Amino acid sequence: MSKTRLEAFSDGVVAILITLMVLELKVPHGADWASLRPLLPVFSTYVLSYVFLGIYWNNHHHLLHTADKINGKILWANLHLLFWLSLVPFATGWMGENHFTPLPTAVYGGVLLLAAIAYTILQFAIMEHQGPDSKLKAAVGRDRKGKLSMALYLLAVPLAFVQPAISGAIYVLVALIWLVPDRRLESSSHS
Amino acid sequence: MSKTRLEAFSDGVVAILITLMVLELKVPHGADWASLRPLLPVFSTYVLSYVFLGIYWNNHHHLLHTADKINGKILWANLHLLFWLSLVPFATGWMGENHFTPLPTAVYGGVLLLAAIAYTILQFAIMEHQGPDSKLKAAVGRDRKGKLSMALYLLAVPLAFVQPAISGAIYVLVALIWLVPDRRLESSSHS
Amino acid sequence: MSKTRLEAFSDGVVAILITLMVLELKVPHGADWASLRPLLPVFSTYVLSYVFLGIYWNNHHHLLHTADKINGKILWANLHLLFWLSLVPFATGWMGENHFTPLPTAVYGGVLLLAAIAYTILQFAIMEHQGPDSKLKAAVGRDRKGKLSMALYLLAVPLAFVQPAISGAIYVLVALIWLVPDRRLESSSHS
Amino acid sequence: MSKTRLEAFSDGVVAILITLMVLELKVPHGADWASLRPLLPVFSTYVLSYVFLGIYWNNHHHLLHTADKINGKILWANLHLLFWLSLVPFATGWMGENHFTPLPTAVYGGVLLLAAIAYTILQFAIMEHQGPDSKLKAAVGRDRKGKLSMALYLLAVPLAFVQPAISGAIYVLVALIWLVPDRRLESSSHS
Repeated sequence: MSKTRLEAFSDGVVAILITLMVLELKVPHGADWASLRPLLPVFSTYVLSYVFLGIYWNNHHHLLHTADKINGKILWANLHLLFWLSLVPFATGWMGENHFTPLPTAVYGGVLLLAAIAYTILQFAIMEHQGPDSKLKAAVGRDRKGKLSMALYLLAVPLAFVQPAISGAIYVLVALIWLVPDRRLESSSHS
Repeated sequence: MSKTRLEAFSDGVVAILITLMVLELKVPHGADWASLRPLLPVFSTYVLSYVFLGIYWNNHHHLLHTADKINGKILWANLHLLFWLSLVPFATGWMGENHFTPLPTAVYGGVLLLAAIAYTILQFAIMEHQGPDSKLKAAVGRDRKGKLSMALYLLAVPLAFVQPAISGAIYVLVALIWLVPDRRLESSSHS
Repeated sequence: MSKTRLEAFSDGVVAILITLMVLELKVPHGADWASLRPLLPVFSTYVLSYVFLGIYWNNHHHLLHTADKINGKILWANLHLLFWLSLVPFATGWMGENHFTPLPTAVYGGVLLLAAIAYTILQFAIMEHQGPDSKLKAAVGRDRKGKLSMALYLLAVPLAFVQPAISGAIYVLVALIWLVPDRRLESSSHS
Repeated sequence: MSKTRLEAFSDGVVAILITLMVLELKVPHGADWASLRPLLPVFSTYVLSYVFLGIYWNNHHHLLHTADKINGKILWANLHLLFWLSLVPFATGWMGENHFTPLPTAVYGGVLLLAAIAYTILQFAIMEHQGPDSKLKAAVGRDRKGKLSMALYLLAVPLAFVQPAISGAIYVLVALIWLVPDRRLESSSHS
């Protein structure tokens, strides 16, 4: 089975999710600065989620790059990842509209955590299919970045009920950790 | 005629349908658990329809894998399948908003039945084009899974007027039957 | 310049337009047959427009099949065609919501006419780029179907102000004329 | 790293943005000319933004054509460009709904300016990756068109607060400058 359609389908879903989030930026009726101000929290969550979806797309790109062949398990692991990513616009809109109140901030982190777990499962499915001398396994190594992000999300979800701003800061931190493209995979794909 | 565009177009339509369904998950105004609760039926129908569209995408992937050439008949059989799939978000939203009342539950099953029939027609169109020693024909065999699903939908539609919960259980059952990827086609594509 | 991206982009736009039209099928609040009835005109215009977009996608598929190379003129002729197609959902929604009243029915025909003209321009741009022994020119011949459709649209637009039902019948007739895939192009692509 | 997915993803995002803008053309309830009139400013901004997105897609097509290889920096520079383009539908809708009042007209120009800057950054990232004998560098030359557009946007943003019509005229002027396909790149891709 070739990976072309899996890539094209994932690209399509992520492209649509990114643009759906813009729809939450409802065109205001007024034409002055005051009418733009209420859009600020929605806009800042849009930027954050855009970066997260961009990171996933980038990493997915690198991940599939190492995979030559695909099986049914990988197809479903990928659909599972796309499912959690498909909830990002909802979680983004809810957090943005409620100005970072506890529950929406926690749910946002929960969706990101589940997407991260789904990504890890997809990684395992590809490694398993590649067998003992998996190129991906060598490239990912101990996957410190992946484990660190999941730990940070696990921390951010309960902390949202104490102080949502801390959770928000943690989400920004995770994004910064990943904004640096995964050099391990990138270098492996050149060798 | 090459199948690349048919695949790309179908991937695009299914990717958009999946993400359109998320739009039915309207961002609630409240920020507590109580405001999430009314979304539960909408969310559970979203999960069900996501799985159904995922199954169709997966099977479509396997189906086209065996097809080397395409003709005008196959193009239209494919557009016909996409038409019924395009009604899935509407049927999903209607069933979700009305908490599984009889008519919406029956209409949901009707749309799934018509999509299953359209899939079968597409399968026949490809077999016919492949001629007497069709690889697809050998792989599909007696198509027991396909026939079983259609029989179950035919049962579920009238049962929705007796007890919608039974129809709902049947839909979940059909999904489970298909969640196992179609090993016949998968293995044929490796040989 | 390769035609891959032009095809992929056009596929994307048409796929989205088709699915956007489903959004006009607003989920009704009631759960009985009576609440489905007002959707009937919207649904029937959806079917008609789905068929028209399907025809354009099919013919576009055949058209680009004969083109090996692409230039800037073809890119813009294609964007021009996509512009008029992008107005199909609006025209469809307006005609459907107003139950085939004169002006919306005429506007619908006008959009189809402009899309047909844009398609013809795209055809000329490809022929011109292919030079004197254009494969497309040989395949299209006198383009009787194309000219007939444009004449029928030209008839349907003013007739909508006399009796919209006649215009509606003409639109269905044009769709039927094209539903038969363009065998001239199809056969040329096999030779 | 191959550029296929970067192209496919960008095509997807631009295709969706173009079609999202049509959604701002809300189907009116009336069925006469009077009910179409309020849509005129929305329609004219749609045409303008359609042309701008078409120009970006065309230039992006030419730009990537010269790039053989891709790196992480180019991926992010591309996502950065798509981010500003993703705000075009919002800026378009705001300007259209407010009939070209000062602030929305300035914001529209600001979004176009930031997209132009992002495009220039992407161009630099590709040139840098191609090294000293970059094909793109030779083709782009002094990039007079790019610099002129940015200068015109810089002029149009403050002028919107004096007389929005002047800014509108400048946007149309920039579009006309670019509507001529970038012959430098096109010719380079044939040599």
